Amino acid sequence: MNMLQLFEKKKQGLALSQAEIDYFVEGYTAGSIPDYQASSLLMAIRLLGMTDDETFYLTKAMIESGDVIDLSSIEGFKIDKHSTGGVGDKVTLIVTPIIASLGIPVAKFSGKGLGITGGTIDKLESIEGLKTELSSQEFIDNVNQHKIAVAGQTGNLVPADKKLYALRDVTGTVDSIPLIAASIMSKKIASGADGIVLDVKCGSGAFMKTEQDAQRLADTMTAIGEKLGRKVVAHISDMDNPLGKMIGNKLEVVEAYALLNGRMEETHEDLLDECVVIASFMYQVAAGVDEAEATPAVKRVLADGSAVAKFEEFIVAQGGVIADIVQKDTAYKAAVTASTAGTVETINALLIGEASVSLGAGRVTKESALDYDAGIQLIAKKGDPIASGDTIAYLYSNHPIDEETVNKVQKAYTIA
Amino acid sequence: MNMLQLFEKKKQGLALSQAEIDYFVEGYTAGSIPDYQASSLLMAIRLLGMTDDETFYLTKAMIESGDVIDLSSIEGFKIDKHSTGGVGDKVTLIVTPIIASLGIPVAKFSGKGLGITGGTIDKLESIEGLKTELSSQEFIDNVNQHKIAVAGQTGNLVPADKKLYALRDVTGTVDSIPLIAASIMSKKIASGADGIVLDVKCGSGAFMKTEQDAQRLADTMTAIGEKLGRKVVAHISDMDNPLGKMIGNKLEVVEAYALLNGRMEETHEDLLDECVVIASFMYQVAAGVDEAEATPAVKRVLADGSAVAKFEEFIVAQGGVIADIVQKDTAYKAAVTASTAGTVETINALLIGEASVSLGAGRVTKESALDYDAGIQLIAKKGDPIASGDTIAYLYSNHPIDEETVNKVQKAYTIA
Repeated sequence: MNMLQLFEKKKQGLALSQAEIDYFVEGYTAGSIPDYQASSLLMAIRLLGMTDDETFYLTKAMIESGDVIDLSSIEGFKIDKHSTGGVGDKVTLIVTPIIASLGIPVAKFSGKGLGITGGTIDKLESIEGLKTELSSQEFIDNVNQHKIAVAGQTGNLVPADKKLYALRDVTGTVDSIPLIAASIMSKKIASGADGIVLDVKCGSGAFMKTEQDAQRLADTMTAIGEKLGRKVVAHISDMDNPLGKMIGNKLEVVEAYALLNGRMEETHEDLLDECVVIASFMYQVAAGVDEAEATPAVKRVLADGSAVAKFEEFIVAQGGVIADIVQKDTAYKAAVTASTAGTVETINALLIGEASVSLGAGRVTKESALDYDAGIQLIAKKGDPIASGDTIAYLYSNHPIDEETVNKVQKAYTIA
Repeated sequence: MNMLQLFEKKKQGLALSQAEIDYFVEGYTAGSIPDYQASSLLMAIRLLGMTDDETFYLTKAMIESGDVIDLSSIEGFKIDKHSTGGVGDKVTLIVTPIIASLGIPVAKFSGKGLGITGGTIDKLESIEGLKTELSSQEFIDNVNQHKIAVAGQTGNLVPADKKLYALRDVTGTVDSIPLIAASIMSKKIASGADGIVLDVKCGSGAFMKTEQDAQRLADTMTAIGEKLGRKVVAHISDMDNPLGKMIGNKLEVVEAYALLNGRMEETHEDLLDECVVIASFMYQVAAGVDEAEATPAVKRVLADGSAVAKFEEFIVAQGGVIADIVQKDTAYKAAVTASTAGTVETINALLIGEASVSLGAGRVTKESALDYDAGIQLIAKKGDPIASGDTIAYLYSNHPIDEETVNKVQKAYTIA
């Protein structure tokens, strides 16, 4: 077998066999297939697509390229969730303690953020003392004892994805539904959970710009998970507007903590609604109950303080200092004002995300250092009436804030 | 500008601008754009095509990547020809002296062969003493004095093509009409001729398998040439069957010399017909005459001995020994016999080409050494009646001839 045969089949519109996909993934991971052949095949996949079978074989081969985490020593049905990435998306910080407080073990591995979408690990690491590098034993012990652990991906999990993602990033082949589906699902499956709730973001601030594409990605991932014996539910949610009021690392932890404490004036209904939906799906998948039972249960643990207590227990178990979860003063702060009066029609999530990266809250490259306290606080949200000159947002950073960033946030608001 | 922008445009179905194509060709030639980005773009081009403008800009950028030969010190309209490559294609050896004997300067640069199609330079170098490495001055002097010189490509001619071709060869992107057109035309234009006759091969033994594709390639190349101020004519010819009777290096020179000498029993009408057509086109383009004038002129110089005299003059001028143009005994010889009786319907050019490479007449890699005397002599040609057990071909080689090669040649014959 050689790569030229794979190119010919793909060009003729034929589907690659499992053996051919294994050959590609194994060879590329091992380094016997060079980058320039891999990128040519990736572009062919980006332009011609993959059948459901091809996507499944790709996912399977990627899982088999490295270690698979064994969570069998954790009792019960282990549930995980994944978001395709959004601006202001701190849902994981809120739903995981909700689910754990309902007695379901949450064993979650998360990545660091890159680009405009922050990573859960970065957010957690903004808390003083909090440790996300756990040994397998610590991780399993924490889940058994506290029903919750969130750790950074360690070991040799899906090395094929690490290599392929880095290549896709520089060869115009990121925006391919089968490649995104295989990348996400291989990591989720290798992480060992029994059930997965997928939060597929759709809109200007997400990879999937249209409802149709988001639905295709959701269907593709669900089919892969089911073929591999996992219970999978995919939920499509809006990412035209940022979620909640805070964008940044520490800022998002602060907002999540406020929401769990029921201080709704410090957050926004859109975040609460989204968290209730995702948590309800997680509980339905894990406990095998229906929506009529799951949603009230989620609301109950939010209202009676069990969720926030579980959140504190989890933070402390991983070494975090609860008293540190407060908004910090930054060296620089800027107010963004409205240039016209009216009602906020939309807030462009992509522009807000880019601005937050400029402020130091996100990474431009894998090596970028983060400013944990930097970020954006949205004062006005979609639907709010505002007068000209009103402050619509505050920007926080420990380096000087340039005019361009202020203008970008102002431009993100469409006021009608 | 960066490659990601080029990928996005191509994926959106937009045409790349001249500046973008220049950026790609310059960057890839200089090494600032890596192979893995170039191959991704090449696959996008292979699958999505290029507009006429894009193909033209690509050709222009490739020409400008290196030196352009200045033939202005040669008097008259300089004519060149190019074949897209076929099995047994020794047309250049025959038509160039025909045209030179008509007083038209032939300034031809040729390549070495790779794969199943031999190169004119290899064929010429099989003649004792013959030199194809000429300095610019020697080349120009020879054309001025003898109206003909054939040299290997020297200097820094179209370095972009050398790099791109090597990459296309291993990334499934050879069979792209715009990429083939740009590759051929950039080399032809950089070689300095005023007019070019393109012999586009079509059939099992050629890159272009269908008449439609061959026509598209012909039209694309003609359009490029005309935009760059060259007179270009493209002729589509059959390459389902090998051309003439001999396949190999010295063997093809021997056949060409026999044809020029009028010894038709040593060659075949199909080769003569093809040479008359190509030579006639070359004369039409160079002398500005019509077919009614050109074809009889070509036949006249073949019949009156001027063409063969010019051939001998050209061989001697480049150091070759005329007495060496005879078929040599090889260490091994095998007869291929017909397994059934009937009429030869076709001879698969691809299989014959592959067999000739096995015998040592062609290169597998750029570094392969050639056996100049190796090759195939087709005893039976298309349309010939044969009895079972008749010898249909002879194989010649200086290394032992394996059963597989004999069977391949037998299999190439379809007898009905």
